[in-house]
Amino acid sequence: MSEVQERDPLPAGSGGRVGEASIGNTGLVVEPASMVIFGITGDLARKKLVPAIYDLVHGGQLPPDFDLVGFARDSTDVETRLREAVIAHARTPFDTSVWAALTERIHFVQGSFDDTAAFAGLAARLVELDVRRGKSGNYVFYLSVPPSSFASVCDQLAICGLNRSAHGWRRVVVEKPFGHDLASSQSLGVALERVFPPSSIYRIDHYLGKETVQNILALRFANGMFEPLWNNRHIDHVQITMAESVGVSGRAGYYDGVGAARDVIQNHLLQLLALIAMEEPVAFDADSIAAEKIKVLSATELLGPLAETSARGQYGAGVENGVPIPGLADEAGFPADSATETFAALTVGIATRRWAGVPFFIRTGKRLARRTAEIAVTLIPPAHGSPAARAAAVSNVLVFRVQPDDGIELHIGAKRPGGGMHIQPVSLGMDFRSVFDPAPEAYERLICDVLRGDATLFPRREEVECSWRVIDPLLEHWAGFGRPDNYPSGSAGPESAERILSRTGREWRSL
Amino acid sequence: MSEVQERDPLPAGSGGRVGEASIGNTGLVVEPASMVIFGITGDLARKKLVPAIYDLVHGGQLPPDFDLVGFARDSTDVETRLREAVIAHARTPFDTSVWAALTERIHFVQGSFDDTAAFAGLAARLVELDVRRGKSGNYVFYLSVPPSSFASVCDQLAICGLNRSAHGWRRVVVEKPFGHDLASSQSLGVALERVFPPSSIYRIDHYLGKETVQNILALRFANGMFEPLWNNRHIDHVQITMAESVGVSGRAGYYDGVGAARDVIQNHLLQLLALIAMEEPVAFDADSIAAEKIKVLSATELLGPLAETSARGQYGAGVENGVPIPGLADEAGFPADSATETFAALTVGIATRRWAGVPFFIRTGKRLARRTAEIAVTLIPPAHGSPAARAAAVSNVLVFRVQPDDGIELHIGAKRPGGGMHIQPVSLGMDFRSVFDPAPEAYERLICDVLRGDATLFPRREEVECSWRVIDPLLEHWAGFGRPDNYPSGSAGPESAERILSRTGREWRSL
Repeated sequence: MSEVQERDPLPAGSGGRVGEASIGNTGLVVEPASMVIFGITGDLARKKLVPAIYDLVHGGQLPPDFDLVGFARDSTDVETRLREAVIAHARTPFDTSVWAALTERIHFVQGSFDDTAAFAGLAARLVELDVRRGKSGNYVFYLSVPPSSFASVCDQLAICGLNRSAHGWRRVVVEKPFGHDLASSQSLGVALERVFPPSSIYRIDHYLGKETVQNILALRFANGMFEPLWNNRHIDHVQITMAESVGVSGRAGYYDGVGAARDVIQNHLLQLLALIAMEEPVAFDADSIAAEKIKVLSATELLGPLAETSARGQYGAGVENGVPIPGLADEAGFPADSATETFAALTVGIATRRWAGVPFFIRTGKRLARRTAEIAVTLIPPAHGSPAARAAAVSNVLVFRVQPDDGIELHIGAKRPGGGMHIQPVSLGMDFRSVFDPAPEAYERLICDVLRGDATLFPRREEVECSWRVIDPLLEHWAGFGRPDNYPSGSAGPESAERILSRTGREWRSL
Repeated sequence: MSEVQERDPLPAGSGGRVGEASIGNTGLVVEPASMVIFGITGDLARKKLVPAIYDLVHGGQLPPDFDLVGFARDSTDVETRLREAVIAHARTPFDTSVWAALTERIHFVQGSFDDTAAFAGLAARLVELDVRRGKSGNYVFYLSVPPSSFASVCDQLAICGLNRSAHGWRRVVVEKPFGHDLASSQSLGVALERVFPPSSIYRIDHYLGKETVQNILALRFANGMFEPLWNNRHIDHVQITMAESVGVSGRAGYYDGVGAARDVIQNHLLQLLALIAMEEPVAFDADSIAAEKIKVLSATELLGPLAETSARGQYGAGVENGVPIPGLADEAGFPADSATETFAALTVGIATRRWAGVPFFIRTGKRLARRTAEIAVTLIPPAHGSPAARAAAVSNVLVFRVQPDDGIELHIGAKRPGGGMHIQPVSLGMDFRSVFDPAPEAYERLICDVLRGDATLFPRREEVECSWRVIDPLLEHWAGFGRPDNYPSGSAGPESAERILSRTGREWRSL
């Protein structure tokens, strides 16, 4: 018998039960401001932005001194159209009194994006609102407009002196696409930074506003059990998947010539990779997290040979709910010989001590068998000496399910009841919706963050450029090969994608 | 871009999906045999053994050449009593045709345990059954009798030459208690081994027949993710709990003077500790697993000072379902000043490189707040530099739930939806009954194992003696201190038990 050998005592109460706790910069508050939405009658504003603002007002999350200014060429019936949009797309039920309160704070300025007089009118209106609020100059400029208009809007803001102020802050929000390759992305960055300082530029990647995505950092770093396993000694590979069941009909103007890699992988999926693979930040604030994301994206590179480690596809005709649906090349707005890929898969590695040798398989596609977005981290099975024991070992997979049904799954092997020692895969799971109150929509969170000045969830210019640097060689490779492989609508993608994993003795998780 | 850097390929199909696989010695089969149950009219035989045999016959798991021979002093109405026992206690529904088939194979020999003539009659009957089966001499002797009769039964078996044979095998099954301290346990071992070779002696610890208990080894060693965490760099402490809500009324003859530590901790709970803490066996067979259990139990020692690291209690009066119930000292058969503990808690350490510094807290009790048996492995929270981050960290706990509702739970911290980064405990779980078909009862599994000659789930003499060596100093310590602490029926045990953990900054998991 000996004395208890003690380590440092744990903090009180951490023995078996755990309480609630916070990390990160929670001290920032939503400040009174005017938010100008350029393109308020466009798709994004109607489907996402204005409904999110309605939901925030409904939930009492915006200060009484918040004003929304719509800027658009065509301002006829704007209020009616926004009202319809809120009824159709808001997360919370439509409440006429909430809407009435909000409309009192919605204002319109009519004009085109190169109309200096209209911008001068905007400036005057913003000052008027400042006076009414008794405060000066916190403005958000939300560029819900095509990238071709970014420079024009920014220039007009600069001409009218709206981009900088000695009183209050000025912030600009831009939506993807952030260019179509590294060079165009750099030009865009230059155009924005000519007008706004980098710290005032908020690039929206709405995926980063999703709860499961934010949970990646919480799970990795607030728990003791994951980080010891989070490296090439214990992880076999990672699969990042975003599959959609819908196609791109009606979006030819945006999608043709862009394709799946630019539309999804360059931004959403490489951001997920950065969160899964980054080192622990010094603090949970915007600068520290951005620094780690930039580091890991800088070390990320395509693994080749590309003919074997990547695949692209374009959906052909199929059947949906018993009704025949056309392939992409037969959809309105797409040329019959369109080379635009609706499916893209690739393999990247990360040249760091932590990740060397661990392949990250990334895929996305439209018109696939089901809608899902997930990150699956597969651990190395135990390496026993005997072949029998090795065969009995199973792969452990930790799945971060982003959509639908956000949650976490852990797949392990357990003994099947009865005689002998037969191992069978089982899964432990947690569904966020069964545990937590409904989460706010990504845009609610992100709009609040802009108003709070918290840039944690917004990718920086360097992150965007690193991501283009990763995929540019693949885009160039594909450009030399005519049309993508055909795959039937409702399938798991082209066969060439299966071979990416099968050549390494692995399999994609089933769709 | 560089070439894919590959490790050894995984076995085919192990990429993300996993199949079924087996480990261990699954080649053994249930052989034709006669099983003699001494004390067939006793509590254990009626409540557990005969119902388990019925269930095995019902499930077609026993060979047609199986015979059951009851040996008891009083053989009146035995068949009726067993039939009632099966109706009341079998897992599967009562089927008259199954029972009829079984009764054809049940035989009785009347006699006392020191009656050589009766044993000679038993020998004759066994030979008769051998002849009828056309096979010779596979006998199981199940000693469902008080330990005081062990030596007597064994001696009679030896006198009649039933303990050894050139044809077929002879096995003896004994039930706990295996002595009341190290010395008496050693005497018992000597008495058994005088008559049977060690490899023919099967000590039943029915806890080891439970599925969740067998699953401990499957989970630890068939998965890649647990073993890297399974040591003092990652595990803070382990709690092993077996709590019962019932008392000991009606069992004074067995329980008084024995108490909770001898009744539960010496066998069940130290066996659980051995499975949780042992090194990986060379193979999943009886010898290899026993070798590792013996090693880890040899390295296990009480941690002191005992006045602070252990506790014992005796339940006082309480209320159950609105009805007052008496304390132990007022129950029939117990002296008013009984010093028998109905609650015992202690702290052990394991003097190995893997476990040095990790306390194992073990507790058991009767008339506690609820019935539960579980092993909870608490990981060390991540050790950040900043106090804020450290406070935000949560303990990860992996719980093996043995009863009720066998399953696995993993408690981790996740981000609470909404702004900021608030960490909240959540749990991932798996309930065996929702995944697997109903498991056989522990006794079904163990009886089959005896007939198969698989001793994997039966503790060996060295294991039993190691366990006594661990708790003997505590029993001696308690013997010097009069009566145990009183605790109210329906509570979590005596306050002195809470202090064992609180002095180390930890807490028991709530009952």
